[in-house]
Amino acid sequence: MKPIGVIHSPFTEKDQTPIQASRSQAIGRVEVYPEFAAGLQDIEGFSHIILLYVFHCSSGYSLRVQPFLDDQLRGLFATRYPCRPNPIGLSVVRLLSRQENTLTVEGVDVLDGTPLLDIKPYVPDFDVRSEVQTGWYARCSRAGH
Amino acid sequence: MKPIGVIHSPFTEKDQTPIQASRSQAIGRVEVYPEFAAGLQDIEGFSHIILLYVFHCSSGYSLRVQPFLDDQLRGLFATRYPCRPNPIGLSVVRLLSRQENTLTVEGVDVLDGTPLLDIKPYVPDFDVRSEVQTGWYARCSRAGH
Repeated sequence: MKPIGVIHSPFTEKDQTPIQASRSQAIGRVEVYPEFAAGLQDIEGFSHIILLYVFHCSSGYSLRVQPFLDDQLRGLFATRYPCRPNPIGLSVVRLLSRQENTLTVEGVDVLDGTPLLDIKPYVPDFDVRSEVQTGWYARCSRAGH
Repeated sequence: MKPIGVIHSPFTEKDQTPIQASRSQAIGRVEVYPEFAAGLQDIEGFSHIILLYVFHCSSGYSLRVQPFLDDQLRGLFATRYPCRPNPIGLSVVRLLSRQENTLTVEGVDVLDGTPLLDIKPYVPDFDVRSEVQTGWYARCSRAGH
């Protein structure tokens, strides 16, 4: 795995970043390295894209963590906590425009300088499920967290 | 990046695998290696999980590819084609049950033996977007592909 580009965002400190892309209106720039730019053809047709990237976690991980939205320890894989055995982040962002190898996007929730691993088109037919249960998250969000 | 487990599926040949998890009703088993099993606590509360895994692509990648559903070449990052600079796959599957470190899931679309990189809970508040445009895919799906 090696970066195909870098994500530029307004966030330079961890505690500034939004909890999730869906809660962010921040504008960012996704700079794809020129050698991969040909792979961006046709992407303008998609209003939303999935970014896969490396979380900046220099400090390892724990298998039980307290999610930002909860007050109890949960299993790491039942959370979106950033520090993971393979620290891959996933965000769905709105694609506003492309200029050559740079995408302007809305809804970034990552630190400035985040290494980009992949871009995939967001396709509801593939990515959306109905009748979903969300465990501890549902309880926290009902409680207004 | 190193695997945290392995995905078992009924598919042993590439041309048997469904095009997307959303089009699959196949049952699979996600075996998380015992040293990571503690991270599965609380996951039973979620009806759907996101699997990140390594695509089996021994043959490199091309920046322009013909998607399975289309008849034209498209930019790789505007497709879900499996052979990518960082061959990370993403599937949303239904979680049926957990027995210790093994998850039984519905909707697998990967080859048997696929290396697992990460599991995240699927949370519509984070992962679902509305008013989505899907470029070439919309044209192909309207055409009945």
